[in-house]
Amino acid sequence: MQILDCTFRDGGYYTQWDFPDDLAKPYFETMERLPVDIVELGYRSRPQKGYYGQYFYSPVLLLRKVRELAPTKTLAVMLNEKDCSLNELDSLLDPCRGLVDMIRIAVAPVRFSNAIALAEIIREKGFKVGINIMYISSLNENSALFDTLSKGDDVADAISLVDSYGGVSPEQLKLIVSLCKGVTSIPLGFHGHNNLELAMANTLTAIDSGCEIIDATITGMGRGAGNLRTELLLTYLAAKNGLETDFDKLGNIVARFEKLKEDYGWGTNLPYMVSGANSLPQKDVMDWVSKRYYSVNSIVRALQNQKRGEKDN
Amino acid sequence: MQILDCTFRDGGYYTQWDFPDDLAKPYFETMERLPVDIVELGYRSRPQKGYYGQYFYSPVLLLRKVRELAPTKTLAVMLNEKDCSLNELDSLLDPCRGLVDMIRIAVAPVRFSNAIALAEIIREKGFKVGINIMYISSLNENSALFDTLSKGDDVADAISLVDSYGGVSPEQLKLIVSLCKGVTSIPLGFHGHNNLELAMANTLTAIDSGCEIIDATITGMGRGAGNLRTELLLTYLAAKNGLETDFDKLGNIVARFEKLKEDYGWGTNLPYMVSGANSLPQKDVMDWVSKRYYSVNSIVRALQNQKRGEKDN
Repeated sequence: MQILDCTFRDGGYYTQWDFPDDLAKPYFETMERLPVDIVELGYRSRPQKGYYGQYFYSPVLLLRKVRELAPTKTLAVMLNEKDCSLNELDSLLDPCRGLVDMIRIAVAPVRFSNAIALAEIIREKGFKVGINIMYISSLNENSALFDTLSKGDDVADAISLVDSYGGVSPEQLKLIVSLCKGVTSIPLGFHGHNNLELAMANTLTAIDSGCEIIDATITGMGRGAGNLRTELLLTYLAAKNGLETDFDKLGNIVARFEKLKEDYGWGTNLPYMVSGANSLPQKDVMDWVSKRYYSVNSIVRALQNQKRGEKDN
Repeated sequence: MQILDCTFRDGGYYTQWDFPDDLAKPYFETMERLPVDIVELGYRSRPQKGYYGQYFYSPVLLLRKVRELAPTKTLAVMLNEKDCSLNELDSLLDPCRGLVDMIRIAVAPVRFSNAIALAEIIREKGFKVGINIMYISSLNENSALFDTLSKGDDVADAISLVDSYGGVSPEQLKLIVSLCKGVTSIPLGFHGHNNLELAMANTLTAIDSGCEIIDATITGMGRGAGNLRTELLLTYLAAKNGLETDFDKLGNIVARFEKLKEDYGWGTNLPYMVSGANSLPQKDVMDWVSKRYYSVNSIVRALQNQKRGEKDN
């Protein structure tokens, strides 16, 4: 089993992918010392309107610094399929060769074939390829995804199941993993969100069901309700499987992110629970929650209306 | 299935069982309006050295006020078996008759027979009796408890399994519930702690396994890493089972406790994860964490030493 830490990539939703060097340096140095296999440090993106920090673009200068701080780790960056066309791949990825080991593509289940087209080119460039399939709590045995999933066999090194809404249950996840295993032999992974405080239970279910790559972030820093906490996974594996973990280093980096959490306040709350329990996107909720002039009540009411298909208020 | 909210009883570990009237009033009024069946409001205790607030003693004047605010709910108070002798029961409980419906006895598995002796007298006084068995993550199929559990059949209305260390896994819980069901027909309950963020998953497992009384607290306020959150359970049951829930009222009371949480900081963290994963008592951790001069690291190190049986530092 491999552990993938994506604190900066998924946590960047809170900081606009800005992380100061005096946090980045100890973070990557700590990753190098912990039993984490893959570090996903950010996105690669073409220039955007509006402000985004350097871990949204991951320029070569940054990648070189990270490579030095974490020389033995597999380094990954992410592309969003919907924001990325085939003819951009050269300019986005050629500068990363030799610095980044793995490219992960985030894709909606209905657009899976677009990810395959990207993956073909990315693999030719010499990168390992991961495909992250989002919104898995909306999948069931009739989902068209399972007819096309085997197309990934020749072009991807891993397919990760992403519980974007934080709404999947252990039973549903077990079913989805088994449906995937029925049609593909590619190593599977799991990326949980914690709306219903089920990220840990789902991760343990994923491991039991044979998932081989587990995503987590320090203090759970990640979009909306956030992720499985890296320190929870490591503590659990240290206690149950004897995984060698340096708790001094882990404790120090956790303490730094806990400080950051005081300002940004990720983690679940009633609005995220409502969005998770009803598999509604947490993008809107995150926007509402971070603007302090919306009350918890008005957010929950808006979500209840969305659920009923009523006009949003 | 019945939902038991014990926010004041278990949350009192943070406030020394002091809750201001301007929080108590809306809390009990909200309980009255939510689909919560039982409200456990505090302990009954003989006078103690040191300061304890009124919900540690639950005097008659307080009980009358609560009864008025939540007239249709089953009201419960808790006794600690180890602090309570048979000859104290008259003075502790006679004044509560007609005001409190249920007495719950918290007891260690090895002292279960003492709880039975208390339960006999309490039931004679006309109360419903619940027995809360603590430390269940230390139980296995050879535990002596399962030889004596059936003694509860004649004197208790419910036996609740308490994951005091927050260290039980869904699989272990399933086993324990089934072992209980093999020897007793009394309705079972579950009280989860959230050290490993498994309180929700364990609760869903408990429900699936036939537990009929589920404990929870608003915002998870409770000893150490805290409990299953009442708002999470209600949101989940509203989405999945159509449980009628007033999200306006729920959101308002959650917002008040979130404010309190900013001061007291319950919830899991690395030291609580270490204590949970290794089934170590969280009493010490809570003491260390709340004294801000201990670093996370020194606490984790102390716990690792406890685990190895080394002298504590």
